[in-house]
Formats: sequence, structure tokens, C-alpha cells
Amino acid sequence: MLSAEIIAVGSELLTPTKTDTNSLWLTEKLNEIGVEVRLKTIVGDDRARLEETIRDALRRSEVVISTGGLGPTEDDITREVSAKAVGRELVFHEDLVEELRERFRRWGREMPETNKRQAYVIEGADILPNPNGSAVGMAIEIGAKFLVVLPGPPRELKPMFEAHVLPTLKKSAGEIVVRRRILRVAGMGESAVDEAIAPIYKSFETVETSILFNRSEIEVHLAAKAKTETETETILEELTAKIVEQLGVAVFARNGELMEEILGELLTENKKTLAVAESCTGGLIGERLTDVSGASGYFIEGAVVYSNEAKMRTLNVTAEIIERFGAVSAACAEAMAKGMRERAKTDYAISVTGIAGPGGGSEEKPVGTVFIGYADEAQTKSIKITLPGDRYLIRWRASSAALDYLRRQILKSSSETVK
Amino acid sequence: MLSAEIIAVGSELLTPTKTDTNSLWLTEKLNEIGVEVRLKTIVGDDRARLEETIRDALRRSEVVISTGGLGPTEDDITREVSAKAVGRELVFHEDLVEELRERFRRWGREMPETNKRQAYVIEGADILPNPNGSAVGMAIEIGAKFLVVLPGPPRELKPMFEAHVLPTLKKSAGEIVVRRRILRVAGMGESAVDEAIAPIYKSFETVETSILFNRSEIEVHLAAKAKTETETETILEELTAKIVEQLGVAVFARNGELMEEILGELLTENKKTLAVAESCTGGLIGERLTDVSGASGYFIEGAVVYSNEAKMRTLNVTAEIIERFGAVSAACAEAMAKGMRERAKTDYAISVTGIAGPGGGSEEKPVGTVFIGYADEAQTKSIKITLPGDRYLIRWRASSAALDYLRRQILKSSSETVK
Repeated sequence: MLSAEIIAVGSELLTPTKTDTNSLWLTEKLNEIGVEVRLKTIVGDDRARLEETIRDALRRSEVVISTGGLGPTEDDITREVSAKAVGRELVFHEDLVEELRERFRRWGREMPETNKRQAYVIEGADILPNPNGSAVGMAIEIGAKFLVVLPGPPRELKPMFEAHVLPTLKKSAGEIVVRRRILRVAGMGESAVDEAIAPIYKSFETVETSILFNRSEIEVHLAAKAKTETETETILEELTAKIVEQLGVAVFARNGELMEEILGELLTENKKTLAVAESCTGGLIGERLTDVSGASGYFIEGAVVYSNEAKMRTLNVTAEIIERFGAVSAACAEAMAKGMRERAKTDYAISVTGIAGPGGGSEEKPVGTVFIGYADEAQTKSIKITLPGDRYLIRWRASSAALDYLRRQILKSSSETVK
Repeated sequence: MLSAEIIAVGSELLTPTKTDTNSLWLTEKLNEIGVEVRLKTIVGDDRARLEETIRDALRRSEVVISTGGLGPTEDDITREVSAKAVGRELVFHEDLVEELRERFRRWGREMPETNKRQAYVIEGADILPNPNGSAVGMAIEIGAKFLVVLPGPPRELKPMFEAHVLPTLKKSAGEIVVRRRILRVAGMGESAVDEAIAPIYKSFETVETSILFNRSEIEVHLAAKAKTETETETILEELTAKIVEQLGVAVFARNGELMEEILGELLTENKKTLAVAESCTGGLIGERLTDVSGASGYFIEGAVVYSNEAKMRTLNVTAEIIERFGAVSAACAEAMAKGMRERAKTDYAISVTGIAGPGGGSEEKPVGTVFIGYADEAQTKSIKITLPGDRYLIRWRASSAALDYLRRQILKSSSETVK
């Protein structure tokens, strides 16, 4: 296997609050084509250390990838230092400046003069275009070694790497390929999932399986090694089928899809529409659903009814319900779902009302108490759940639980229809 | 200032799913006593690379801290390799084995023979006891350099570092402390901020300033070094005041606060209430506002009016506006804000309507076109912005722009009231 090193550049990555995450994504992509990451370095805006790091990395490993430090300010030293480390000059590209000027113009702004720094490229390097930012990347062969200089922002780095670096690396990479797959499971704990599927995955010796807990769901990570892509895919398919057979409807995604994507597919397939009424999640469910491009095909309307007045005004929750049961109650959740569905004239509506904390809890309804409502043409119902975690986690988990409740209802009703 | 490097050891830290977080905690502790982290390395269970890394680090920096690789298995190479890197022998400590045996006995288990490996210590090193695990740490002075070898699990590493490493380092680190502060700036680009404040921060020689772009805003990171905490605070206050004087209202946070926290404070102080009407942001603004504990004091209601019907039904946007100007228009944004404010009976309402993409753009209204509406008692108005980026970024930036627009309006109206 080819060996690679990743160098993350930026003093902010040496502070207590920032960490380099680009290398995780890059590692996954590199592993997929059979390139192994042997070392990662995080270096500040420090010319001497960066130069030494690049030189050492090129001596030790076949592929060296740097991320960050390509911005327009004086702190952004990667361009100059990497040129120096490989003993080449920086060449000014007038056409890059013109492109940048034009881009700023489209944003209705004038290009600051400092951005000219971003038009310097290492002599002999391929320029990697950046449709999402002002810093182009660079790729250069130094003898048998390959140096790739990428911008730091993930949204710039990722498409650049996929379009312009991966294809080249793939050609020189080796015989073994690794393919990964993520299954997502809702409504079960980590140990329960592991107990249920350990006998299955342990019999697949060429697959590395790990089980991770991700905020509100369990992820089963599979990494299969084989000589061809087809072979890895066959193994992954077989293992996935066995896991799904064992865990059933709890597996909501077989290919790393998000819950909101799966729901979008379900609603689109079944030609159904949805509305959402949120109290403690404050818009999070709407935000997640509409993060999926094309959501306008099924998502009609959401109501963030944070105050009791809003619940009554917009969703026809009665004053009696609020007084007798409280805003955090099964009755209120059901009234919210019913009221939302009637308002938006959709096939389904879901609702969430709960106590996200840190304040607002009581003995009877502690922080983490959440009611989820559901309404369709035939019925209105609700469930009560108690969620651990801080405000952020309770809100996130409540939104996931609501989406999963809806998913299970849709699956149930479509299997009933089939019968 | 003393300079430090941190080396995280373990092949699992070179996979796509695991990241080194020990170094973040260590960095914070080191910074507090005036030790600066200049480089971090993540290396696998790879003898040659680890040895080179330790040697290089000791040559470059005064303090070198390694974490991980002290377990009892053959993969755990840090003990041997660090001894080799500093040219010393490993010495077997019978008393450590006895302690380990006794510990295993207390757990009701017999010590596996492999654990004997954990009783080898670098010649001349101080042994750092580990009450929470079986691997002791080591600290050793090599000339004027200081090498600290710590176990990987955070609950073993942290107490060990605090009890046995910090006090020693503090003595030699001596006199300098570092305090950090983050200022946040909205409505300006990275280069514009840098051009405006470079002359200011460059005159503060004891402060390291870096300017970062964080999705929709600019962050100015300040790290002040001085002999006392009070002195660092005075310097940070002075520099912050000068930057704020230069950038004015664009600086929305002086202590790392989020936009939604700042808005919460403003609304609470002024005893005002808010409602939000969202189309393309789909609930994101509501979600951000309600992420702040106590938001129920000022946030009354949100409407996620994703479809045209919802805009008309819930916010009284007229069919004429939709037909004549389209749902993505100044007229629609203003009608949404006005309709929302009237429905929720709040002091303020803001609205967002735009094209988040990837589909839905046209020549006249390309992807990224966003209108933000604002309504208060006296007026209804709107701005048009064009945002770069993908769907995620456009939505995020639109939400930030809307919150910032509201912030500026509140600041304006409260300064007018004062007059």
C-alpha cells in the first residue's frame, strides 16, 4: 500500500478549542483507494517547523497532503513555505487574479488587494480549481513523491480532492481496496446492537466492524478489504443483509443516509405530505427535513410554537389542555399534531413538546421529558420518552425520535396497504 | 515562553473515525502556565516513525509530551521506542509488578503475564503513578529538555498530568501566562477585517492575533501573554476596545458569544419579543434562537412557511405578491415579516425567503439569492443579499444574515430611543 502523511496547517489548530477534522475525511478517501495514512502533523503558522515537516514527510512517505494556510492574509504561509520546502519558486498567475476579481464582482464586492497573494502557485504544480472559495490548490510531483496542497475549509477541500486528487492517486495506488459502509440504527442501545450482531460480524474475517454511538443513533461501521471493488461490495452486501435480518426495522439506513434523507425518500415514494409542529426543538426538525434538497415536494409547513399562546393561536390547542395537562403532555402533543395537520392539510403531521433544560424540570416531569405526537387521516396518537443529556443533546435526540416515530408509522401503514 | 510538542501514539488515531482529543485538554493546561504548543503529531504503532518523531520534537521544543501506547500488548511501543529515542535502557521494576498483581487481585482477576511489560521504565525517569489504570507514566529530563510519557485514556492521563507534571512544568515555565479571547464580526470579509485592524493588532507585540472565517462570520482570535492574569486581561481589554472602535457595529461579540446569545441579551435587556418566518432556512433561525436557554422569554413563535400555500395561509402573503413578484422577492419577505409580527403580536419579526439550491435558480434569481424581511411597530423593510456556497452554507449564512439584520435594527432603534 502507498503511504501518506497529512499536515494540517494553522495556529488555531494548536489551541484548546479547535481540532483538525479534515484529516479524518481524507483518511477515509485515501483508505478507499488503498493508500494508508501513516502520520499526521498539526503545525502552526510557523515557517521553520512547517518547512521541516513538509521535508520530513516527503522523505518518509509517498504522498503528502497539506491542508490550510492558503488564505489571503500574512498568516497564510503554506504557499510560500511549501515552495521553499521543495526548492521551487512561486509563480504569479494573472489569470487567477482576474478570476478572483470577477468572483468578488459577482458577490457585489471589490477584491481586496491582499487576495492577490492567492494567485501565486508553485512552479510546475498543477492548479486545482476551487469553485467554493478563493484559494486554489496545488499538486506537484517531486521525484517519485506527490505533494498536494489543499485549502483548509472542508467545503473547499472536499470537492477539490475528489475531483482533482483522487483520480490521480488512484492510478498509482496498490492492489488492495478498502470499502466502508455505515448502517444506522434507531431505537436501540450500543450494547444491545453489539450483542445482537456480534456473532454475525465476527464470522466475516475480512471486515473490520465497529459500533459507535452518534448523539441519538447507533452506527455500525463496516470496512471490507479485498482485491477488487466488486469483491468488497459483495462482502458488504452480504454482511449488511444479515445484520438487517437480525435487527429489523431498527436499521433505518444501509448506506450512511441520514434519517431525514430516508424520510424524504419514503414520503416521495408514497406521494405523501408532511407538516411539523415544534415546541422544545424550536425549528430543528423543520431545519433537518429541509436540509434535504427537494424537500419542498413533501414538506409543506412547520410551526415553531414556543409559547403557549402560539400553541393555542396557531394549532388550536385548547386552554383546557394547557391548564389541565400542561404544555408538556400527551394531550398537548396530540392536539399539536392534529392542529398542524388540519392547518397544513397534509397527510401526516408530527409534533414535539418537552423540557430541554437546563431549567424547567420538575419531579413529575424532569428535564428530558418529551412527548411526540403523530396524526394522519385515521388517527392521532403520541409517545412519551425520557432523554438523557444536556440541552443540545435532548433537543437533537427529541428531533430524531420524532422523525423515527414518523418513519415507523409510514412503514407500518404502507405494509398494511400492501396487505 | 517554553515551547511544547504533543505526540499522540496509536494506529486507531489514524483511522477515519477516531481523533486525538487529549491534546486539546493538554494544550489548555499548558497554555495556562505559559507553555505554548507548537506542533502536534499523530503517529501509529510504527517504531521508526515514532522514534524519529520523538527525536525531532526534543530537538525543536523544550517540552515533549507523548500520549498512548503504554498498554500491555505488543502494539504498545511507546515505552521501548521512547527509551531508544533518548538513548537509554529500560529498567524492570519488580515493585511495579507487585503493585499490578495486587491491583488485579482486588479486581478479582489474575494479572496476565503480558502486563509485566508495563513494569519497564526508562532509566533515570520519574515514575508517574496511575491510580486509574495499569500503565504508569514517565517524566525525564534530557539536558535542558523535558520528556513526559503519558497513557492514552483521558481518565488516566488527566489526573496524572495534573498531579505529577503540571507542578514541575510550572516551576520551569515560570513567569508567563496566556489568556485567549475571541471577537466575532458580521457583515465583513476576512481580508477587509484584516486590512482594517492589522495596524492595530500589530502594535500589540505580546498578543498573537489570528483572523479566521467561520461559515458566515469572521473571528478575531487574540492570545495575550504577560506575567500575570490581570495584566493579560488589561491588554486584551485595551486591544478589544481599539478593534471595536475601528470596526464598529460589525463586532457583535467580544467574548466568543454566538450571534443568537447576543440577540437574546439584547432582546432581554430591551424587554422585546420576537417572531420568525422562514422559508428557505426551514426552521434553522428558530432552532438557533431556541438553542439559547431562556429563549422562551423573548422568542414567541416561528413559522416555517415552505410552500406558497403556507405563506398565504399563515402569514397573509397575498396571491398577488406571489404571482407578480414570486415567493423569492422583497415584497414577499416584507409581507412575511409583517404577517408574522401581526400573527404573533411581537415587537419584532424577521423573515427569510431565498433559493438555497442546488436546484431552483434562474438567471434573474440565481442560487444564493436571499431576501430578508424585518418588521417592527413603525416600519417594514427588507434587504437582498447574494450568498456564495452550497445548500448548507447558503442556509446557514442566510440565517446569520437575518439575525445580524435584526441585531443592527435593535441597536439602531435603542440608540434612537436614547436620543
